[in-house]
Amino acid sequence: MSPKITTELLKQLRQVMKSPKYVQEPVQAYIVPSGDAHQSEYIAPCDCRRAFISGFDGSAGTAIVTEQHAAMWTDGRYFLQAAHQMDNNWTLMKMGLKDTPTQEDWLVSVLPEGSKVGVDPFIIPADQWKRMSKALRSAGHDLVPVKENLIDAIWADCPQRPCKPLITLNLSYSGVSWRDKIVALRSKMAERKVVWFVVTALDEVAWLFNLRGSDVEYNPVFFAYAVIGMNTIRLFIDGDRMMDPAVREHLQLDSTLEPEFKIQVMPYGSILSELQAVCSGLSSKEKVWLSDKASYALTEAIPKAYRYLTPYTPICIAKAVKNTSETEGMRRAHIKDAVALCELFNWLEKEVPKGTVTEIIAADKAEEFRSQQKDFVELSFATISSTGPNGAIIHYKPVPETNRTLSVNEIYLLDSGAQYKDGTTDVTRTMHFGTPSAYEKECFTYVLKGHIAVSAAIFPNGTKGHLLDSFARSALWDCGLDYLHGTGHGVGSFLNVHEGPCGISYKTFADEPLEAGMIVSDEPGYYEDGSFGIRIENVVLVIPAETKYNFKNRGSLTFEPLTLVPIQTKMIDVNLLTQKECDWVNGYHQKCREVIGAELERQGRHEALRWLIQETEPLIRVQ
Amino acid sequence: MSPKITTELLKQLRQVMKSPKYVQEPVQAYIVPSGDAHQSEYIAPCDCRRAFISGFDGSAGTAIVTEQHAAMWTDGRYFLQAAHQMDNNWTLMKMGLKDTPTQEDWLVSVLPEGSKVGVDPFIIPADQWKRMSKALRSAGHDLVPVKENLIDAIWADCPQRPCKPLITLNLSYSGVSWRDKIVALRSKMAERKVVWFVVTALDEVAWLFNLRGSDVEYNPVFFAYAVIGMNTIRLFIDGDRMMDPAVREHLQLDSTLEPEFKIQVMPYGSILSELQAVCSGLSSKEKVWLSDKASYALTEAIPKAYRYLTPYTPICIAKAVKNTSETEGMRRAHIKDAVALCELFNWLEKEVPKGTVTEIIAADKAEEFRSQQKDFVELSFATISSTGPNGAIIHYKPVPETNRTLSVNEIYLLDSGAQYKDGTTDVTRTMHFGTPSAYEKECFTYVLKGHIAVSAAIFPNGTKGHLLDSFARSALWDCGLDYLHGTGHGVGSFLNVHEGPCGISYKTFADEPLEAGMIVSDEPGYYEDGSFGIRIENVVLVIPAETKYNFKNRGSLTFEPLTLVPIQTKMIDVNLLTQKECDWVNGYHQKCREVIGAELERQGRHEALRWLIQETEPLIRVQ
Repeated sequence: MSPKITTELLKQLRQVMKSPKYVQEPVQAYIVPSGDAHQSEYIAPCDCRRAFISGFDGSAGTAIVTEQHAAMWTDGRYFLQAAHQMDNNWTLMKMGLKDTPTQEDWLVSVLPEGSKVGVDPFIIPADQWKRMSKALRSAGHDLVPVKENLIDAIWADCPQRPCKPLITLNLSYSGVSWRDKIVALRSKMAERKVVWFVVTALDEVAWLFNLRGSDVEYNPVFFAYAVIGMNTIRLFIDGDRMMDPAVREHLQLDSTLEPEFKIQVMPYGSILSELQAVCSGLSSKEKVWLSDKASYALTEAIPKAYRYLTPYTPICIAKAVKNTSETEGMRRAHIKDAVALCELFNWLEKEVPKGTVTEIIAADKAEEFRSQQKDFVELSFATISSTGPNGAIIHYKPVPETNRTLSVNEIYLLDSGAQYKDGTTDVTRTMHFGTPSAYEKECFTYVLKGHIAVSAAIFPNGTKGHLLDSFARSALWDCGLDYLHGTGHGVGSFLNVHEGPCGISYKTFADEPLEAGMIVSDEPGYYEDGSFGIRIENVVLVIPAETKYNFKNRGSLTFEPLTLVPIQTKMIDVNLLTQKECDWVNGYHQKCREVIGAELERQGRHEALRWLIQETEPLIRVQ
Repeated sequence: MSPKITTELLKQLRQVMKSPKYVQEPVQAYIVPSGDAHQSEYIAPCDCRRAFISGFDGSAGTAIVTEQHAAMWTDGRYFLQAAHQMDNNWTLMKMGLKDTPTQEDWLVSVLPEGSKVGVDPFIIPADQWKRMSKALRSAGHDLVPVKENLIDAIWADCPQRPCKPLITLNLSYSGVSWRDKIVALRSKMAERKVVWFVVTALDEVAWLFNLRGSDVEYNPVFFAYAVIGMNTIRLFIDGDRMMDPAVREHLQLDSTLEPEFKIQVMPYGSILSELQAVCSGLSSKEKVWLSDKASYALTEAIPKAYRYLTPYTPICIAKAVKNTSETEGMRRAHIKDAVALCELFNWLEKEVPKGTVTEIIAADKAEEFRSQQKDFVELSFATISSTGPNGAIIHYKPVPETNRTLSVNEIYLLDSGAQYKDGTTDVTRTMHFGTPSAYEKECFTYVLKGHIAVSAAIFPNGTKGHLLDSFARSALWDCGLDYLHGTGHGVGSFLNVHEGPCGISYKTFADEPLEAGMIVSDEPGYYEDGSFGIRIENVVLVIPAETKYNFKNRGSLTFEPLTLVPIQTKMIDVNLLTQKECDWVNGYHQKCREVIGAELERQGRHEALRWLIQETEPLIRVQ
C-alpha cells in the first residue's frame, strides 16, 4: 500500500479556500468530515471526500486543512491504515491518546487571530456544528457554512451521485402500506403537536415508502429526503426513477387520491429551499420535527422557535419494531442464509486441508452460496473472513496484501451477511478445521457462555439493551478476559444491518427500551492479538417471555435466535458449561437440524445436510 | 396526621412577593426547592423551608407559589404523605405520571404575560436554573434571583443555623493530613490549569480539613465553604468554633506556617463577596473550578469565561478512594456494628414472640446497642425498622401512627447504620422470627443470589458500577420479579452514608469507574406491596482480584464485604442456590463467626456469641 500523493490536491484546495468563486470571504481552515448529507454509516463513492483529499479510506476520520497544515483525526482501529495511506503532507491525530488535541483545540492553536473555519453545512451534523462553533467563537474565530463543497470543486473525476432503479416492496414483505405508515406518523406528530416532519435518514425514507434502492453498497437505500405535513407528502428524489411504472403504481402517483396522500415529487437538491418555504409559512406554536443528528443546513433552515428535535425519530422507533410480515420474512431470510453457510462450511471442511483456500476465496464462496438463494440481493456488509492473527483485527476485511490461507492449525472467523428481499442477515461463526488447543477451546467456551447468557436472558418490559451487556462478559471477566466492542446492534428488515434505536452495549445509555418485535445481534467475542479471534453472533428477535410471577403483569421479554447455524461443538469445552447452558446448545442445535435440515432436504443439498446432522449431535456433559 | 393549615402563611408569602422591602420588582411566582446552599441530601431544620410553607416534609419536593396557586411536585414515594400533610391550598403534582406538567410548563400555563418568577439563587443549583430560565424566557417570562429568602422573611420562629462544635480527626483516622490533601488538590488544579477551587459540598469541606461536625442530623458535617488558591486557603465558617484550642491546633492557626498553608478564616456569609473579589482579580486564562451542581449564586459569581465546571470535583473523587487508615477504620466500625446487631437480633429472637416489641422499640434498641460501642457518634440515617406490609415501603420510617408490632408471623426488615469516629455503617437484614412461607423463602433466596452475584463479581479495572446492576437482578428476573431501586451507593468514611461519584444503579451512567479502595453498598431487594419487604445489604470494599488471565495486565477488581452480620439461613431455600453460591454463604458466615465471634468474646457478650454461632452453621445443599 503506497500513500496517496496529495501535494497538488492540497494546493488546489487552498486556492479554492480563498477564491471568491467559492467562498464569500476566504476561510483559513476547511473541515472535511466522513459522512454524507444523511449521516449514513456507509457512504457512496461520490461522498468519499475525505478519502479523496487524504488517501485515507477507513470508515471513520475527519480531515482539517489550513493554509499551513493538513491533519487527520481517526481512532485506534485505523492508526496503522491511515499512516500507510497518507503522505507527508498529513499529520495523523490519534484519537483516544492522552496527548492528542481535539479538533477545536488544534484549530485554536494553529489559526491566526480572527480566522474563519469553513465546512459544508450539509455534511456536518447540527450537534457537532454547535460544539465546534462554540469552541471556536470563544477563541475569537468563526465557523462558517460554505455552500459549495470545496472538495467537489477540485475533484475533477468525482463519481456521479448514484441514481439506481428502485425496488417496490409489496404488503407481503412490508406488512404495512406506506399510506398506513403515513397515518401512524401523523398521529405521532399530532401527539407531539408538530405539523411537519422532515425525514433525513436514508433508511427512514426507504422504510416509510416501502421502497428500496442500491445507491449505497450493502445498504438497500436511495438518495432522498421527505417532508411530511398533516395534509401533504413531499418526496425529494432525483433521476428518472419516478418514471418506472412499478414505482408510479406503488406510490399511486397517477391515481386520484385524497389530497393528504398525494405524493409531490421534487428534485433532491430542492430540499433546503422547500424547507425554508415551509418554515416561512409557520404560525406560532407550529413545530417542525427533525432528528437531532440531522445536518446543520436543514436544522438551521428551521427557525429555533419552531424546531422540535429528538434523538430518535418516530420512524426510527416504528421501524425497529418488526411486524409479523417482517419477522416472517426475517425468518425465511435466515433459513436461506443458514443453508448457504452449511454448504460453505461443508465445503471448507473438505477444501481447507488441501491448503488452497484463502480468506478471499472463502469470502467469495460464501457469497456464491448465498447468491444461489431466492430473493438474494447483495451482501449486507463487507465479509470479515479472517484466519489466525487476522481474526484478532475486529474490523478486518481481507485484501490481497493481507490475504491468508486457511489451515488446519488456525482458528477461522467468518462474520458475514446478506440482503434478501425478505430480510437482512448477519452471522459470525468461529471454526477450527483441525484440532483446537485447550486454551482456544477455553476462550471459545467463555464467549459461548456469554452468548447464551444474553440469548437466554429474561428481563422485564421496559429494560434497555445496555443493561444486558455485562451478562455477555461475566464468564470472560471471571477469568480475566474481555472484549473491547459492544455486544449487539439493531438489525433492519431488508435495510441497514446496523440500525437504532436499540442495541446491547456498555457504551450507550440513550438507547430505547427493548420491545417485542425488535431485532438485535448477540455477538460477544474474544481476541488474542497476533494469534486468533473468536466471535459467536446470532441475530435474535425480542419476544415475550413466560415467567413464574410475570413482574406483576408488567410482562417480560427474552430472545429467540433467528440465526440457525450450528456452533462448532469441537470448539466447546463441555465441562465448562453448566447443565442449563449445555441444554441451551442442544436445544439450539435440535432446532437448526429440524428447520435448516428440512430446507436443505427440500433444496436437495444432501451433502450439506449430512454435515449439518453431524455438527448438531447433542453435547454430553460429564458430571 | 392532620394537614398543616397554610392559608395565613401563603397570604404572608404573597405579600412579601410584592414588597419592595424584599424584591426589587414584584414576583408573580416564587419557587421553594428542597435543598440547602450546599445541595445536601440531608438538611438542617433551618433549611426545611419547603416543609415550613407547605407542611409536606418528605425528602424530595419543590413548592411553587403564585398569586393564585400553590403547587407541590414530588415523586411516587411521597404521593400519599404529601396528600396527608398539605391542606386544600395546595395542588399535588405527581411527578412521573404522564399527565403531570413540568414546573416550567405549569408556570407558563398559569402566569400572566411577562411574569417574573423568583427563587433564592443560593438554593437552586446552576443547572436547574439554566433549564428553568430558558423555558421561562422562551415563553416571555423571567426567572429572577431574589437575594433575601422570602420564606425566611415570613418564618417568625425559624430555627437558628446550627453551629455545633467541631471534631478534629488525627492522622490515625484520616490517614492523610489536611496539608497533604491541599498539596494533592493543588496538583490536580495545576494539571487542569485552574488557579482557584471552590469547595461547596459540606462533606468535601469536612474531608479536606479532616474536621467533622454535627450541624446536620446523621451527617457529620458543618456549615462552611472553602476557596483554595495556589497560595491561599480561605475557610468560610461561623461561630466560635474556631476558638476551640483543639481546632486551632489542628488547623495550625497560631503557628508560623509557610504562607501557602496559612488558613484565613472568614465569615460563612462572606463567600459570595469574597468569590466576586477573587474573580475580579483574574487575568485571562485563569480559571476557577467549581462543581456543576453548585448553586446559581456562586456559579454566577464567576464570569463565564473563567468557569471550569465538572460533574465530580477532584475532592469528591479523592474522598471516594479510601486510604489504608480509612479502610482499617471502616473495618473496625463494621465489627462494632456487627456486635451491636448480634446483640439486637439475639434480643429480638427472645422478645418478639412475647408480642411486646414494636418497630420503634426495635429501632431504639438497635441504637442503644450501637451506642455502647467505642467511638459511636450517632446514627448514619433514620432507622428503617419495618415489619410485614411496612417492609414494602422502601423509605419507611416508623412513626407512632404506623408503628407495628413485630411477630412470629411476619418478615422483619431492618435497614440501619451508624457514624463511628472510625467509620460509617449501613446494613440491612431481613429476618423471620417464626416460620417463613415457601414463597417468602423463594423471594429471599433470589435476592440473596443477586446480592452474591454482585459481591462475588470480578470485573476489569475501569468498569463503572452501573454495569454491575443487572447481576443483582438476574435471578429475580428469571422468575418475573424485580425491585425499583438501584443496587448500591458510595459510602463515606465517618461522613455521609450516601456519597458520589460511584454506585451500582441502572439509573446512572455518569458514575466514575470503580477503583480499589472505593466503598459501596450491595443491596438488592424484593417488595410485595401490602405483605412484606426483603433487602440484603452489605457495605463492600473494592479490592484487586486474582484472575487466571488478568485482563492482559489491565488488572481486575472484586468486592470484600465489610459488613459481617449473619444472613438468616432460615430464610434461604438452599436448593435454589448453586454450589458456588452455597460456598459463598458458608465462607461469609465462617468469617462472621471468626471476626465478630472474637470481638463478642472480647466484649464478654456470651449470649450474643451463642446466637452468632448458631446463625452461622454451614448450609448443606442436597444434590
